[in-house]
Amino acid sequence: MKIILIGAGKLGNQLYKSIISNKAVKIIQWVNRSAKKNETSEGVSIVKKASNLDNIDLYLLAVSDDSIGTISGSLPKDAFVVHTAGSKSLNTITQKRAGVFYPLQSFSENKDVDFSKISVGIESKILTDINLLKRLAKIIKASVFEINSQQRQKLHLAAVLVNNFTNHLFVEAAEICKKNDLSFNLLKPIIQETFEKIETLSPQNAQTGPAIRRDENTIKKHLKLIERPYLKSIYKLFTSAIQTKDEK
Amino acid sequence: MKIILIGAGKLGNQLYKSIISNKAVKIIQWVNRSAKKNETSEGVSIVKKASNLDNIDLYLLAVSDDSIGTISGSLPKDAFVVHTAGSKSLNTITQKRAGVFYPLQSFSENKDVDFSKISVGIESKILTDINLLKRLAKIIKASVFEINSQQRQKLHLAAVLVNNFTNHLFVEAAEICKKNDLSFNLLKPIIQETFEKIETLSPQNAQTGPAIRRDENTIKKHLKLIERPYLKSIYKLFTSAIQTKDEK
Repeated sequence: MKIILIGAGKLGNQLYKSIISNKAVKIIQWVNRSAKKNETSEGVSIVKKASNLDNIDLYLLAVSDDSIGTISGSLPKDAFVVHTAGSKSLNTITQKRAGVFYPLQSFSENKDVDFSKISVGIESKILTDINLLKRLAKIIKASVFEINSQQRQKLHLAAVLVNNFTNHLFVEAAEICKKNDLSFNLLKPIIQETFEKIETLSPQNAQTGPAIRRDENTIKKHLKLIERPYLKSIYKLFTSAIQTKDEK
Repeated sequence: MKIILIGAGKLGNQLYKSIISNKAVKIIQWVNRSAKKNETSEGVSIVKKASNLDNIDLYLLAVSDDSIGTISGSLPKDAFVVHTAGSKSLNTITQKRAGVFYPLQSFSENKDVDFSKISVGIESKILTDINLLKRLAKIIKASVFEINSQQRQKLHLAAVLVNNFTNHLFVEAAEICKKNDLSFNLLKPIIQETFEKIETLSPQNAQTGPAIRRDENTIKKHLKLIERPYLKSIYKLFTSAIQTKDEK
């Protein structure tokens, strides 16, 4: 399989590392506008703009959501062009042979990701093209599931909740610890338990704490302890939301 | 060590199971108002109210926050009486020999907890009493740290954020999945990554997603996709909170 990889952000870099480490896929070019070299240490040609080459099986776009349309428009009309975005429709790709290859994961700059622990949501406009995406996922050892654009956008929203928003709660908790001379590490076991619990219980059944047991004294005390206005709003909103779910 | 364990809720049950499984501590009585038997299968006497016995090293209260004062008031004045609550001051215990034994964990009814993975925050009014609490923690294989009542209350607040509120985000995400014919299991790897990340990055540096990269298109799209008013408020609030943190 010959591909051109477009994009060198967090996802682009992780895809490059993962694909280059095996021989079933050859990266013919890597579009990387910030690189200062013409070639990677593995001998892949680095370019500012993808060439119009014959025999490219797949143009894989790991670019910002807003550039997908423009970049797709600059690529050959008969190419198989695939984006990797959670919340962009398949139709953002202008080619007839459009596809989506969405790794459901949060990519960070200083942490390599193990694709064998990732599921990739795939979609293709032309039915038979799905097989190439399945092969690519298999090659980088990711598991794979078919999903349409509407479902994928909802899944992306859910991923924002469980990843970005959960991480923000960690940020707030870390700040409380810091201000009170407590190590954030003290919270690691309960964080671990939070994630482990949902292996055996539904999130709804796993809920505990002052909100669900309607412990008004503790809730009032916590609201008094909170200094940051944002956190006070978060505390009130989650307490109401947890109690409303409980009533259903 | 001879103790009377008071309380048979989620924590009381876990403490009973953990303490009974070793021989260094003897539970003389277990105050369990909902039990229908007079004795546990391990031969521990079950009572409705603690007896005033000689030679009890420790009265361990695993009861609701609001009952600590009353129950403490009914126990011998010279006893060592210890509560297990996150947000109650040491002084809620009326005895001179007051103490706190706070396992920083979330306890569920249908899931046993491994105390060897838990840290217990301890405090005692009389300096030398701390050693008994250290011994008890060691016996149930928990790790231990000393913490005063003010710090403990802040830590409890932080624990509510990382456990209860995180779990509520899982509840919301599970609902989105259910409504869109998606398995919640698809989110497990990104949930796993969310807490693995903070092993190597600070929560602040681990933040990703539409809010922190100020991706207004995706944020608008997500707000349109959200049906539940509570979730819409949560989404807006977290987006602002993440962006405000980022500016600091």
